[in-house]
Amino acid sequence: MPYGYMGKILHVNLTNRTIEIEEPPELFYRMYMGGSGLAMHYLLNMLEPGVDPLGPDNVLVLSVGVLTGAPISGLSRVMANAKSPLTGAIGDAQGGGFWPVEFKNAGFDAIVITGKADKPVYLWIQDGQAEIRDAGHLWGKVTGEVDKAIREELGDPRIQILQIGPAGEKLVRFAAIMNMSTRACGRTGMGAVMGSKNLKAVAVRGHGRIEMADPDKVRELAQWGRENFEHTGMWAFGLHGTAGGVNSLQELGALPTRNWSSGVFEGWEKIWGQTMSDTILKERDTCYGCIVRCKRVVEAKEPYEVDPYYGGPEYETVASLGSYCGVDNLVAIAKANELCNKYGMDTISCGGTIAWAMDCYEKGILTKEDTDGLELKFGNAEAMVQLVQKIADRQGFGDLLAEGSYRAAQKIGKGTEELVVTVKKQEYPAHVPQAKRSLALVYAVNPFGADHMSSDHDPNYDPGADKATHARASVLGLINPVPNRDLSNEKVRWAMVTEYAYSFLDCCGTCQFVWGPTWQLYDMDQLRELVRGITGWRVSIHELLEVGQRRLNMMRAFNVREGLGKEDDMLPKKGFIALKGGATDGVSVDKEEFLKARDLYYAMNGWDENGVPLPGTLAKLRLEWVAEKLK
Amino acid sequence: MPYGYMGKILHVNLTNRTIEIEEPPELFYRMYMGGSGLAMHYLLNMLEPGVDPLGPDNVLVLSVGVLTGAPISGLSRVMANAKSPLTGAIGDAQGGGFWPVEFKNAGFDAIVITGKADKPVYLWIQDGQAEIRDAGHLWGKVTGEVDKAIREELGDPRIQILQIGPAGEKLVRFAAIMNMSTRACGRTGMGAVMGSKNLKAVAVRGHGRIEMADPDKVRELAQWGRENFEHTGMWAFGLHGTAGGVNSLQELGALPTRNWSSGVFEGWEKIWGQTMSDTILKERDTCYGCIVRCKRVVEAKEPYEVDPYYGGPEYETVASLGSYCGVDNLVAIAKANELCNKYGMDTISCGGTIAWAMDCYEKGILTKEDTDGLELKFGNAEAMVQLVQKIADRQGFGDLLAEGSYRAAQKIGKGTEELVVTVKKQEYPAHVPQAKRSLALVYAVNPFGADHMSSDHDPNYDPGADKATHARASVLGLINPVPNRDLSNEKVRWAMVTEYAYSFLDCCGTCQFVWGPTWQLYDMDQLRELVRGITGWRVSIHELLEVGQRRLNMMRAFNVREGLGKEDDMLPKKGFIALKGGATDGVSVDKEEFLKARDLYYAMNGWDENGVPLPGTLAKLRLEWVAEKLK
Repeated sequence: MPYGYMGKILHVNLTNRTIEIEEPPELFYRMYMGGSGLAMHYLLNMLEPGVDPLGPDNVLVLSVGVLTGAPISGLSRVMANAKSPLTGAIGDAQGGGFWPVEFKNAGFDAIVITGKADKPVYLWIQDGQAEIRDAGHLWGKVTGEVDKAIREELGDPRIQILQIGPAGEKLVRFAAIMNMSTRACGRTGMGAVMGSKNLKAVAVRGHGRIEMADPDKVRELAQWGRENFEHTGMWAFGLHGTAGGVNSLQELGALPTRNWSSGVFEGWEKIWGQTMSDTILKERDTCYGCIVRCKRVVEAKEPYEVDPYYGGPEYETVASLGSYCGVDNLVAIAKANELCNKYGMDTISCGGTIAWAMDCYEKGILTKEDTDGLELKFGNAEAMVQLVQKIADRQGFGDLLAEGSYRAAQKIGKGTEELVVTVKKQEYPAHVPQAKRSLALVYAVNPFGADHMSSDHDPNYDPGADKATHARASVLGLINPVPNRDLSNEKVRWAMVTEYAYSFLDCCGTCQFVWGPTWQLYDMDQLRELVRGITGWRVSIHELLEVGQRRLNMMRAFNVREGLGKEDDMLPKKGFIALKGGATDGVSVDKEEFLKARDLYYAMNGWDENGVPLPGTLAKLRLEWVAEKLK
Repeated sequence: MPYGYMGKILHVNLTNRTIEIEEPPELFYRMYMGGSGLAMHYLLNMLEPGVDPLGPDNVLVLSVGVLTGAPISGLSRVMANAKSPLTGAIGDAQGGGFWPVEFKNAGFDAIVITGKADKPVYLWIQDGQAEIRDAGHLWGKVTGEVDKAIREELGDPRIQILQIGPAGEKLVRFAAIMNMSTRACGRTGMGAVMGSKNLKAVAVRGHGRIEMADPDKVRELAQWGRENFEHTGMWAFGLHGTAGGVNSLQELGALPTRNWSSGVFEGWEKIWGQTMSDTILKERDTCYGCIVRCKRVVEAKEPYEVDPYYGGPEYETVASLGSYCGVDNLVAIAKANELCNKYGMDTISCGGTIAWAMDCYEKGILTKEDTDGLELKFGNAEAMVQLVQKIADRQGFGDLLAEGSYRAAQKIGKGTEELVVTVKKQEYPAHVPQAKRSLALVYAVNPFGADHMSSDHDPNYDPGADKATHARASVLGLINPVPNRDLSNEKVRWAMVTEYAYSFLDCCGTCQFVWGPTWQLYDMDQLRELVRGITGWRVSIHELLEVGQRRLNMMRAFNVREGLGKEDDMLPKKGFIALKGGATDGVSVDKEEFLKARDLYYAMNGWDENGVPLPGTLAKLRLEWVAEKLK
C-alpha cells in the first residue's frame, strides 16, 4: 500500500465516539507541512479561548509531517499539541522512536482528538482504519506493561504504542506522552491532557510505504550521511549520548547546578556520558532509520535496579535529576529516568521541581514535616528517587510537586516563589542563559515556555574563527559575526531567524540532531533538497523559514487569545541573578539589556509593542484567518 | 590583472576635483551586493534631505555589482541613482551594454560623484586609476560624436563610454545616461543630474578579469543556458526583439494606445517586432557575454533616414512613441528612437509626454499656437518626430515638454492635469495595469515612480494550468494560484515578493530578461547558484530576497525624508478610468480595491499606515542606521 507524502487527518471525538477521516488539499500541506504547524491550524480553529486544559473541550493533536516515512536519518518524530495544563498557553512536545513512521505507514499525518471518553479507551489504528477500544484493563498500568498487553491483545508484536503512564492518568501537570516506553513527548504536560480525555494509548500498525517524488535524491542524501557521519559532532552524540557534552558545559560554566545557583558541578564527571558508557551502558538505541544512535539503554543492579526496557538518561535528564539537584549518583539518575519513562513524566520539569524543593529545604522554608520526612538536601540521591515516585503517584508531598514548581510555590508562599526557575510556569531546560545568552531571550518569548529546542544556542564562532559553521548559518542570511554573552541586535536577529528554522523542523518532525542550521549532520541546504526529493515541491529556504514563522505566529496568536501578555515573556527573578563559580562566576543576564532585546525581537517579528502579531505580519504569512481570530 | 568580485569604490568630488578610492569590507558587499542597493547606502548617508536635484549637492552613483564581469549571459548592467529631477524622489535607472563589464574590469564597483565641475569635464578610468579631463570640446555633441572623439583622443578603440547627450546638458528632466549610444539608463532623469554636474562622460578601459570562487559552476550554468536557450521565451526575444510581443499584448488588450485611452491599437501589426524583422532590421545586437541578442539595429532611408549606429527601438519605444501617440509608422518611431539615443533621452517619458500633448490637442485645450504650429493629432508621425527633436533642443513648445507631462500640465492647467498618466510625476511605461492588475499597485508604490521592471507582471497561470511557471515562482514561497485582473491579498503578496526578487536583480545588475523568478532563461535557483559560484558566499534565496527588500526599504526611507507620503503612492486620475475596445473594453482599476491593496501592501512590508518603514522592519534588515535617519 504505497501512500503519498500527504497523510490523512483522523478526527476522533471521544465523547461521541465518532471517527472521521479528512483529506486536505495539497496547498494545506504546503502551507503547514505537518507537525505543530498543522496542529496549530486545528487548535486555533477548534478551541475556544479560556477552556480548561484538563476538560473535555481541550483538543489534542498528535501529528507527523510530510517528510515522515522517508528512509533517512532524523525524520521519525511525533508532535503533541494542545492547550497546556502546565502553562495555560499553547502546549508543544515532540518525541522520536518508531511510532511516527508506523503511524505514517498507516496512512495518517495527524489525529485530532476532541471530547472525553466516559471510561478509559485506547485507539487502534491500522492501515487507514481506526477503532476506539476499551482500556479499562490497561488503566493504572505502567508503560512497559501496556506495551506488552496491547501487542498481545491485538496479536502483532510490531504494533507501535503511544501512551500515557499512570502520571498522565493522575493529571501530573508535566506528564508526558511516551512511545516505546523510552521516547517522551515530554514538555508542557501533554500526557495530562491525554489522561484527562481517558485516552490511555494510541496503537498503530501500517503496512504502507511512502512514495517519494525523487527517491534517488533521498537515497543520495542518505548515502552522504553515512559517508560523512563520523566527521561530524553527531558521531560523539552516538558514542556517548547527549550527555557526552557534560565536560564541555562544565568548562563553559553552563551546567545548571543546585537549582540554578551555579554553572559548574563538582560531580560532573560522575554524570558524564562517557562515564555512562564506561559503567551502566548496555547498548545504544536509535529511532527509525537513523544512523546517529544517540539514545542510551542502561542497566544496573546497585544501588538501584534499573530496567533496560526503559532506555537511559539524556543530557537533559542527567542535568535536571542530577546537577540541578546536586546529585552525582548516575545509577540513581538512571533509576529516576526509568521511573519517569515508566510512569510517563517529563524529566526536565520533574527534576526542576525537585531541585526547587531542595532549594526551599536548604533554605529552611520547607522542613521534613512538609516533605513526608524526606531530607531534601541537595545531593540526596535517594530522596530524589523517592520524590519522583511520589510525584508519579501524586502521593503526599509528591501531590503538591505534581503541580510543578510554579504552582507549588504559589501555594506555599514564604518566598519560595523567588526560587522558582520557570518561564510561563514551565521549568528551565538544562542550558544556561547566562552562558548562552540568546537563550535568555528565547526562553522568555517562546510560546510554550522555557525551551532549548526552539533556536540555535549561541554560536561559539566568528566568521574568521569558524568558517564552516558561519557558512552554514549564512544560508539563513546570518552573515555577521555574533559575539558571545550579549544580547546585541545581531544576536537578537540570530535568535529570531534560527527560531524560524527550528520551528520549521517542528512542522516536519525533523530531528534537531540530524537536520539544522549549524552543527547538525545535514544543513539547511540539504534539508531543502530533502523536502524537494520527498514532495517534489520546489521549496527554498525562504519558504521553509516562512513555514516556521507561520507556526510561531499561530502559537503566539493562540496565547494572545488565552490572555497571555508581555509580562509572560519574562524570565524568573532567579534568571537575572549571577551564577557562582567556574567560568560563569558572577555572570548574570542584564535585565535592561534583556528588555531592550525583547522589544527589538517583537518589532523585528512584526508584532506590536506587547508582542501581538500585527495584521500585516499575519497577512504576509497567509494567516488572514488568524488575524480575524485576534479581532 | 585579476580582481575579486568586490570592486573598489571611486569617490569623485567635481567641485574640488578630488578623487579617492575606498575598499569596503566583505560584509558591506554581502549586505548590499552592488547596484542600487549599494548606491542607496551612499545616497542616504551623503545626501541631506531637500537638496536641489539639479544642484551641486545632489550625489550621483553609477554602479555595477558583485556579479558583474562573470562570463555568462545577462550580467552586464550599470545602475544610476541620485535624487531625481523628474520625481523629486529617489531616482533609479539601469542599462546594459559593454560599459559595465569594462568598468568592473578596471577594478571598480561604483563611482560616487559629488559636487559640480566649474566647466564641462569627463572622467577617464583605466585599470584602477581615474582622472578628470576637460570636456569643453565635447559639450553640445551628440552621443555618437562623443564616442568617436574620446576614443580618438585617448587612442584606444576598445574604450567604453557612458555619457549624456545634449538633452542631459540642457537638463531635460527625463534625460538619460547612455552607453554605446544605444543603451539607456533611461528613467527618472539621471542624465539631467549628470548634466547639472557638468559631467559629460565616463570613459573606461579595464584589462582585469574577475576571479571567481567556483569558475566551473559558472561555466556549467553558461553551458546550460546555451543548451536550453532555444526552448525558452527568451529565444523569441532574440528573434524579434522585445517588440516581438506586441501581438500578444494587442490580443490581451494591453497595448497602451492614444494616451492610455485604449488597450488596443489598430496599427499594432505595423509596429510589431516581427514587422521590424521583415523590414528595417539590419542586425541583432547583444550585451557583454549574452546569448539572448534582444537588442535591435535598424536602418532606413525613407521616409526618415535612420542611422544604425543608434540601434533600434525596444517594445517600450514602439509603444510610447508609437501606440501611445497613435503612430503606426515604424520608420518614424525608429527615427524618434535614434534621436532619443543621440540626444540622450528616456523614450518612455518622451513618448508619454508627447502622447499627453496630443491628447490635449485633440481635446482642443492646446492649439497650433501652443505647439509651434504642429498639428498634434494622434497618429501624426511627423509631428511626433519633430517634437522629439524640439524637446532635446528645449526649443519652443519642446522646452515645456522637456519638463515632463506632469509639470507641463501644472503650468498649462485648463484640465490638462487630468490627462496626465504619471506616478510621482513619471510617465507610465507600456504595460497596462487594467490588464496586468498587480502593476496598478506596483506603479503606485514603486519608490521611483511608475515602473515595469520592478516586479513580475501578473502571472497568467494557475498551478494546474502551468505547472512549470508555478514551480518556478514557488521557490519564492508563492505557492497559491493567483487569479488575473484582481488585487486580492494573494496578488498583493505576489507583487510584493516578486518586487523583492527584482529589487535583488537591481542590486546586482542582473538582466531581468535572463535571470528571474518565472519566465526568464534562468530561474532563482540558478541565480542562487550563480552568486555562490562567483562569490563563494553560501547564499540562499532567503538572503537574496532580503537584499532586495533592504534596497526597497532604503529607497522608501529616502523618499520619506524628502517629504513624500501616502498621497504620492497613487495612480493618476486616468489610471482609474475604463479602457475602450478590445479585450479590456470597459475594464478599469477599482479605486477601493486599489486603496485596500495599498494598505495591505504597506502592512505586509512592515511599514506603518502611511507607508513609512517601522524601526523593527529596518532592524530585521540590519538597517538600524536608516531608522536613525528617519527619527
